[in-house]
Amino acid sequence: MPKRTTHEESSCPVARPLDVLGDGWTLLIVRDAIDGLRRFGQFQKSLGLAKNILSARLANLVANGVFELAPAADGSPYQEYVLSEKGRALFPVITALRQWGDRWFFEEGEPRALLVERESGAPVAAVEVRAANGRVLGPDDTRVLLP
Amino acid sequence: MPKRTTHEESSCPVARPLDVLGDGWTLLIVRDAIDGLRRFGQFQKSLGLAKNILSARLANLVANGVFELAPAADGSPYQEYVLSEKGRALFPVITALRQWGDRWFFEEGEPRALLVERESGAPVAAVEVRAANGRVLGPDDTRVLLP
Repeated sequence: MPKRTTHEESSCPVARPLDVLGDGWTLLIVRDAIDGLRRFGQFQKSLGLAKNILSARLANLVANGVFELAPAADGSPYQEYVLSEKGRALFPVITALRQWGDRWFFEEGEPRALLVERESGAPVAAVEVRAANGRVLGPDDTRVLLP
Repeated sequence: MPKRTTHEESSCPVARPLDVLGDGWTLLIVRDAIDGLRRFGQFQKSLGLAKNILSARLANLVANGVFELAPAADGSPYQEYVLSEKGRALFPVITALRQWGDRWFFEEGEPRALLVERESGAPVAAVEVRAANGRVLGPDDTRVLLP
């Protein structure tokens, strides 16, 4: 196995979060939390993950401030994993990934989960990169300034 | 180590792409390609990855249609890894991740790489999830319809 590398000293804002997110299960836990799941058993049922692996991933997300632990909303003795502001801020990341998967990993007409606006039931618009004036930008319209 | 799981039968468009992307190095290779890198040696220099690991990640991205192989633009005997339409479509995913990293993984004033519009030099706008009418949506404004 390759040595586990950390990106915590990187000056690239794409790299640093990968120490927290760079594992498929972690992104799916966040997806489930955005969809409203809060309890260990709910995540386990949704993901079919072994308890020890799910435990480790959740602990990592708590340690990194993506989840906050809270007493169960219904007064039962369970703890709930609630997305922090930092965790909720992953919504555009998860949605952009969702749309990429929708476009490139399904056959036309193949059944798939669909993100819709709650009120209207209409699919959300494509997530785009835009300039300050609203113009849609592609990779060639941008460049990275190194520090 | 946990058994490697595939999400290819999942009905969730967040899950399916993780078989291709669910590794931090892979996302950083795509980041570098969006930033203009094309050659094995360029990726290796940028990422500091062992050749065998970089080779395997690049082969995976070619096999999954994110990169296409092309003869070197300058006529030299090297092959270049060129983002396909599918690969370029990752720009909003990488940019949303970049902005999340920028917001949550750096101290205020800490030097970091910055994505700017090429012409104006101005930072790109925040990537947002929007309804068809342009309204910005949060997680609570949406829901997932299962197939």
